[in-house]
Formats: sequence, structure tokens, C-alpha cells
Amino acid sequence: MLLPVAMFGLGPLGQRVALELEQRRLGRIVAAFDPGPELVGRPLAELVPGADPDVRIATVPGEFDGWERVRCALVTTTSDLELCMETFRVLLDRGCNVVSTCEELSWPWLRHPILAAELQERAVRGRARILGTGVNPGFLMDALPVALSTACKRVDRVRIERVQDAAVRRLPFQRKIGAGKSLREFEQRVADGSLRHVGLGESLHFVAHYLGWNLERWDESIEPVLAERELASDLGPVPAGHVRGVRQVARGDVAGETVLELVFQAALGEPEPHDSIRIEGDPPLELRIAGGVHGDTATCAIVLNAIRPLLTAEPGLHTMASVPLTGCATSLSG
Amino acid sequence: MLLPVAMFGLGPLGQRVALELEQRRLGRIVAAFDPGPELVGRPLAELVPGADPDVRIATVPGEFDGWERVRCALVTTTSDLELCMETFRVLLDRGCNVVSTCEELSWPWLRHPILAAELQERAVRGRARILGTGVNPGFLMDALPVALSTACKRVDRVRIERVQDAAVRRLPFQRKIGAGKSLREFEQRVADGSLRHVGLGESLHFVAHYLGWNLERWDESIEPVLAERELASDLGPVPAGHVRGVRQVARGDVAGETVLELVFQAALGEPEPHDSIRIEGDPPLELRIAGGVHGDTATCAIVLNAIRPLLTAEPGLHTMASVPLTGCATSLSG
Repeated sequence: MLLPVAMFGLGPLGQRVALELEQRRLGRIVAAFDPGPELVGRPLAELVPGADPDVRIATVPGEFDGWERVRCALVTTTSDLELCMETFRVLLDRGCNVVSTCEELSWPWLRHPILAAELQERAVRGRARILGTGVNPGFLMDALPVALSTACKRVDRVRIERVQDAAVRRLPFQRKIGAGKSLREFEQRVADGSLRHVGLGESLHFVAHYLGWNLERWDESIEPVLAERELASDLGPVPAGHVRGVRQVARGDVAGETVLELVFQAALGEPEPHDSIRIEGDPPLELRIAGGVHGDTATCAIVLNAIRPLLTAEPGLHTMASVPLTGCATSLSG
Repeated sequence: MLLPVAMFGLGPLGQRVALELEQRRLGRIVAAFDPGPELVGRPLAELVPGADPDVRIATVPGEFDGWERVRCALVTTTSDLELCMETFRVLLDRGCNVVSTCEELSWPWLRHPILAAELQERAVRGRARILGTGVNPGFLMDALPVALSTACKRVDRVRIERVQDAAVRRLPFQRKIGAGKSLREFEQRVADGSLRHVGLGESLHFVAHYLGWNLERWDESIEPVLAERELASDLGPVPAGHVRGVRQVARGDVAGETVLELVFQAALGEPEPHDSIRIEGDPPLELRIAGGVHGDTATCAIVLNAIRPLLTAEPGLHTMASVPLTGCATSLSG
């Protein structure tokens, strides 16, 4: 029997996760929830070809009475841990394991230590496991650097860079990073919080924790990447001096020195997209993934690949470094 | 209190592991064993500065009566699992956890399935854990490729390359790979089994297992890398036509196609040493560590870094993909 799964959130990412779960035969969706008025009541199979035709999208999980047979819930609703808490409480109290793309859940002790303690307690009590993951945060700028450091006897300094060419990504992503905006519009969107990659601070603290570093200071900056000359794009021409993307840098200090630097840059027309990890230490190591890792594809993959290792772990609140990394998963049985 | 550790094997690698264990404050050696006549009876501190002056090197573990306080044994004796079994039996039966550089232990199901089953049974019975690891096998050509595949929804083919410049390594390593020999001497040493990197087949089957592939066929080749022109080296000049190193290739097939290829090449004067992992799949990924990873340094580091995650795992026979990768370890308490 395939693993019985409940889906929470059926936006573009949730739909894709659901579809790949079924296509890769990693599970079978037995319940689906999304409060969107255009979704409620519709058969899941309309959005996710191949899904069980009897599953209809419901608003709240209270209506569902089959929790004892659900092994895992996939929650792809929002970056904001506070907004996810109601769902997480329902699931953990019913003993249902959770994998979520909620960025703040990847290292919840940073912004929500009290909620993190609550999740840990509820998970242990319900004998369930909960994990926040995705390509970033979750893998490229946190779990992978920590994994790489396994080959080191000493780590002095780490620099992690993720540089993406937004031209090959979906239009909503291009809009999200401010591409095509004027400098002023960009600054307004930064000020109102609508333009920000969530998770850089989480990745920073994840790495610091597993390297045993107590950061005495950290900060995060956000700035525009400007077009030097007019650029063609799927959003229309971007004039010189307008924004072609965003650059965020997070830094952490120990003993007055910056030991950890994370650079996230996503812009139209990046000439050399890549992911890189540079460890200064013994031995020094420099890892590079030329071309970078496709964000949407990898996030879906990681969420689904994380189910199996999570289910083998002890009940509790987990991170990508507290469960084994068992790689690209093959089919899971219930 | 530092983690109480027992050392088995005090050759060059064992001495280095012991020294770093103490220097990194990851443990404290409370017992040390090596049957070498030049070692038995000597204070460990003569070989490992800073070690407990009361610990003397003993031949057999039978003489030691403090097993109940030893949390972990580090076994750096031989590549051959059969030869390690007596030690492993003693340790597991006494409930002592084991991390070993025994190459065949990294994936013991390949060449010793019956011994693997015995280890699993003894470990569970003794409530102990046992793990074989090192830089290769153990990390670069097995755990790291599997970890990388976490970002993939589908893996079609994997190629892993480890190319090392032997000129920067110790003389015994240079000799071990046949550098400076004539073609005929090389072939003799291949025939008598004294020239071989142990573990490529283990890494191949490790990766295949975690990707869910049943290899229907596999093979491993070994050939010399010849000097095209005379080379200066620490072993003396290597004439053109003589051997400057070794190239081993392991391949695994599924459905009549080679899906997994591991290339290990170590030779004097390699112009571009590197470690690389190429995944053909969705998304395709190509990871490269330019310059490669220093073998001795990384093996010591990995053995010591693996202690902590192993101790948190369930009792049993483990692999580097069944324990969490918690990275470069900071100090461990007992």
C-alpha cells in the first residue's frame, strides 16, 4: 500500500508536490485542504491528475475523520510559522507526521523559540515528527554545507553563495524578486516586507548551530541588483538603472569576526548562476554546482525525499541535519 | 567529562586519529590496543602527546576490565572485514559502539553478507552501533552523492570521479599506487592484490542501494597511469613509460545500461585534481570540488565527526546514510 498522505495548501507549489507524490508513487493523497474559495469542494483530481477521484478539497481539517490512517501531512501554505501553527497543532496532536515548506520552520528557534518549544512538546506527546525543508532554506545553504563539513577537522569560516538567473524561472518568481521595478518601487516593497527571500537568517543559524558556533552578532541586508543596460525579459524590457533582481547577504560573527556569510542573489541575466560553498579550515574545501539548482524542481523533490528519513527518526521537531539524508527516494509503502 | 574511547590499531592512521581525538577534545582514550611487538607495553602518551599517561598499549582487549565505561571504540586496523571480526565481536558483545576505517565495513553486504548479518544481530543484542567510514569509501563517493541526490526528483545516471595528485601525499601512499614502477611490476602487484584501492565496489553498491537500483551486473577495472615523459618525484625520477599512478573504474548496470560509474585515479603530476559528482536526472546536477579533498586529513576528520551522530542512532549496523550527517563536530561529553 502506498503511504497515505494529507495535503495542506494547493497553490502552485502544493499542486506540484501533490502531483509528484502521486507520479513518483511515494504516497497516495487521502485528504486535501485549502481554504481558497475557488478550490473548496472541488475534486482533487481536477488539479492533480491521477489523484483519488473520491478526495475533495476541504477547508478545515476538522471535517476529516480518517486521521488514524494518515502517516504524513505535507504543508505548503506559507513562509510564516505563526500562520502555520494552527495546522501543525491539529496534526501533531493527532500523531500525524509533518513535512512543510514553511521557511521559518527550517530553523524555528531563530524567530519563534517559544513556538519551537511548543512544536517539540506536542510532537513528542503525539509521537509524531515535524520538519521544515525545501531547497533553500533546507538544503543548499544549510544541510549541504553542514554535510560537507563532515570532511573537516576544523572549520574557521564558511561562505555560501546562491546566484540564480531569474530569466529561466516562472514569472511570479521574477516579480517576487522585484525584476523590472524602479529603484523606488523596489525600496517601497522592501519597506513593506513583500520583497524578501525568507530563510537566509534561518540557514545562517542552522549552519552556526551544527558547527558549534554561538553567533554574538548577525545581520541581513537586502539590496537591488540594477540593470547596467536595457535588458529584454519576459516581463518586458527592463531599462538601464531599473532593478533586475535582488541580493541578500546574511553575516554572522564570532569573537568580533565574520565567520559565516550567506549570499543569495537572484536576477535576470546573471551570467554565471551557481551554488557554492567555501569552507576555510582543515582541509579547506570549495564546492561548486555550476548552473545552480533549479529551485522549484528541487524544493518539490526535497519535500518528498524527506518523508522517508523523517518517518524513521525519533518523535519530535527535526531539522535536515537531525534526520539521515537518504537521497532521492524510491517508492514508499504505508 | 570527555567521551571515553578505546583505540584499536596504532599505525600511522590510528596514531593520527588518536591525536586528533584528544586535540579536538572529542574524547579521551581510556584503552589502546595494538599487537605490534614494538608497541605493546608502551605508554600511549609516547605516541600520542597529551594522552592519559596511565594508558599503556595492550595486545588483546581481554586484559581490559573497564568496558562498562567505554562509549566508543575506534578501529583503524585493516581494510579486510574478516580480519576485523574478532575485534568487532568483542566490542559489540560488550555493548561498545564502533567507528572503523575498515573499508569493507562501509558497505559490508557486498563482499560479506553473512558477516554483515552477524554484525547487525550482535549490535542489536548488545545495544551497540557499528559504522565503517572514511573519506573514500564512506563520504566522497557514496554519502555525498546520495546527499546530493536529495535535490532530485529522478536520477537516471550517476558518474563520480576522484582524481588525486599523489605528489602531495605521503610516500607510502605514492608507493601504494605503484608510482615509479615498471608496467610489469605494476601488473605483478595487481595480480598479487597488493596494489588496489579498496572500497570502490562498496561505494558503488552504497549509491545503488540508496537510489533504489538493483544492479544486475557490475565490474571493476584497474589499470596503470603511465608517465608520458620523465617525471621528477619524491620517489626519484619516473622514466617515461613507467607508472605514475593507478586508475580504477567501477561500473554498475541496470536494464542493460551503465547507470553508475565511479572513477578513482591517483597519480603523480595529475594536472587537475578534483572530486566531482554528475547526476543525470531532474534536475541534472554537477558538483565539483576543485583541488579535491586531502585523503588522510579528511579520513581522520570523518571518523571523529561520525561518532556523535552514530551514538544518537538506533542500535545496529549502520552506514553513512543511516545516521544523520551532523558535520564537523565540536566537543563531545561522555
